[in-house]
Amino acid sequence: MAASRSPIGVFDSGVGGLTVLGALRRRLPDEELVYLGDTARVPYGTRSAEVVSRYAERAARFLARFDPKLVVVACNTVSAVALPAVERSVAAPVLGVVEPGATAAAGRAGGHVGVIGTPGTIRSGAYQAALARRRPGLRVTARACPLFVPLAEEGWTDGELPLLVARRYLAELSGIDTLVLGCTHYPLLAGVIAEAVGPSVALVDSAEATAEAAAALLLRQGIAAPAGGAGTERLYVTDLAESFEPLAARFLGRRVGAAELVDL
Amino acid sequence: MAASRSPIGVFDSGVGGLTVLGALRRRLPDEELVYLGDTARVPYGTRSAEVVSRYAERAARFLARFDPKLVVVACNTVSAVALPAVERSVAAPVLGVVEPGATAAAGRAGGHVGVIGTPGTIRSGAYQAALARRRPGLRVTARACPLFVPLAEEGWTDGELPLLVARRYLAELSGIDTLVLGCTHYPLLAGVIAEAVGPSVALVDSAEATAEAAAALLLRQGIAAPAGGAGTERLYVTDLAESFEPLAARFLGRRVGAAELVDL
Repeated sequence: MAASRSPIGVFDSGVGGLTVLGALRRRLPDEELVYLGDTARVPYGTRSAEVVSRYAERAARFLARFDPKLVVVACNTVSAVALPAVERSVAAPVLGVVEPGATAAAGRAGGHVGVIGTPGTIRSGAYQAALARRRPGLRVTARACPLFVPLAEEGWTDGELPLLVARRYLAELSGIDTLVLGCTHYPLLAGVIAEAVGPSVALVDSAEATAEAAAALLLRQGIAAPAGGAGTERLYVTDLAESFEPLAARFLGRRVGAAELVDL
Repeated sequence: MAASRSPIGVFDSGVGGLTVLGALRRRLPDEELVYLGDTARVPYGTRSAEVVSRYAERAARFLARFDPKLVVVACNTVSAVALPAVERSVAAPVLGVVEPGATAAAGRAGGHVGVIGTPGTIRSGAYQAALARRRPGLRVTARACPLFVPLAEEGWTDGELPLLVARRYLAELSGIDTLVLGCTHYPLLAGVIAEAVGPSVALVDSAEATAEAAAALLLRQGIAAPAGGAGTERLYVTDLAESFEPLAARFLGRRVGAAELVDL
């Protein structure tokens, strides 16, 4: 099979990576996408780098069975602390969400960038380091926001309650001009996050930046799917396939097919 | 070693079970307690019964090494869906938190009981079934409250924000006279929960009810520690031992020793 016709593997700890799948679909309508959500071990964001690496390796080995031309790590925690484990486990190039997000933020920022994400992503310092490599001297303030994930999963994304949560977390980031949404769940809360930080702060969505980077990589390597390609999606989860579908619809903003249950 | 001098094993998916450890300590000051928090796999509350049973079995086998005289499953999800897996894995009697909580609520209730817990506990129907066995015809309304756990872990347990969350969840439980706190994290939010439901609703804390049941079981079997017993605690976790200590202090309301990292 020519590499151009191989699928893109997409992997997340759960349902959040579907915002990346959605961005990939919009940017690359002809590509075949295989998504794995490791719902039996979600969330990764509160775990150590060692444990996350072990889980990521197993997930990558599962995706390797599909002979993917590219693996997108649609999980900020894995991108931050366990990309080497993924790279060891697949032959394809591997793209995380941190580097594209940091590139977009560094290109747009004035002098002070905020980064929000899970405790694991923030503790890793990955965004902070990636921003410093691109713009030494750029001021970066980071904050973990653990309530944002359950808010997004409850669908409580508008109104007083999520706004109150956003204000509480983001009060510590005063003075920033750019804010990186360093967790795949956060685009669902972009409205209240924007309201909490005010109109002078630009939001950078790592999902969109990663889809751009994926498109550029396929083009550069001459392995993009031909126009009129399959454009199909296959979804796999490691637990609770039945409750995945309604959540997936919320994250993608459209209905999806049934997810298949797999044991890594 | 005489059984009376054996430790009590206590097991939870993470840090929440420490409210049960605290209740056991207050009720049974002479007992030696061994606590295991499976922080590498927390939370259990969003997982399927099959996956929870697999995790619970491994945890129980770890506690079995201490030759416990009693194993307390200080996790509502495991108590609801996986007690048989624990009973298969240890020789000691096993006590979950659901049955003692349901007994206390059924004894106190007027005609309508509310139950709140994680999605896994509520979906299991374990409290609903345990209440129906004790008081057929009792009306029971149950509601999952997934934001309560991160609120408790952030320490955001007072003020407008947790009260708003509590009001949003508990609005659906109007008309209840008794409310079971069916998750070990929830005692930390008892203040705002009480405010949201009003003074006419009695709160039942499963942790306190379980400590009572444990004391009764030890007495009945003649294996309580003699007065002046060790009264010590050993804490084990499967991930992030260093961040466990400050959280543990919040849950226990006092300082604790360092937790030891173990791989199940």
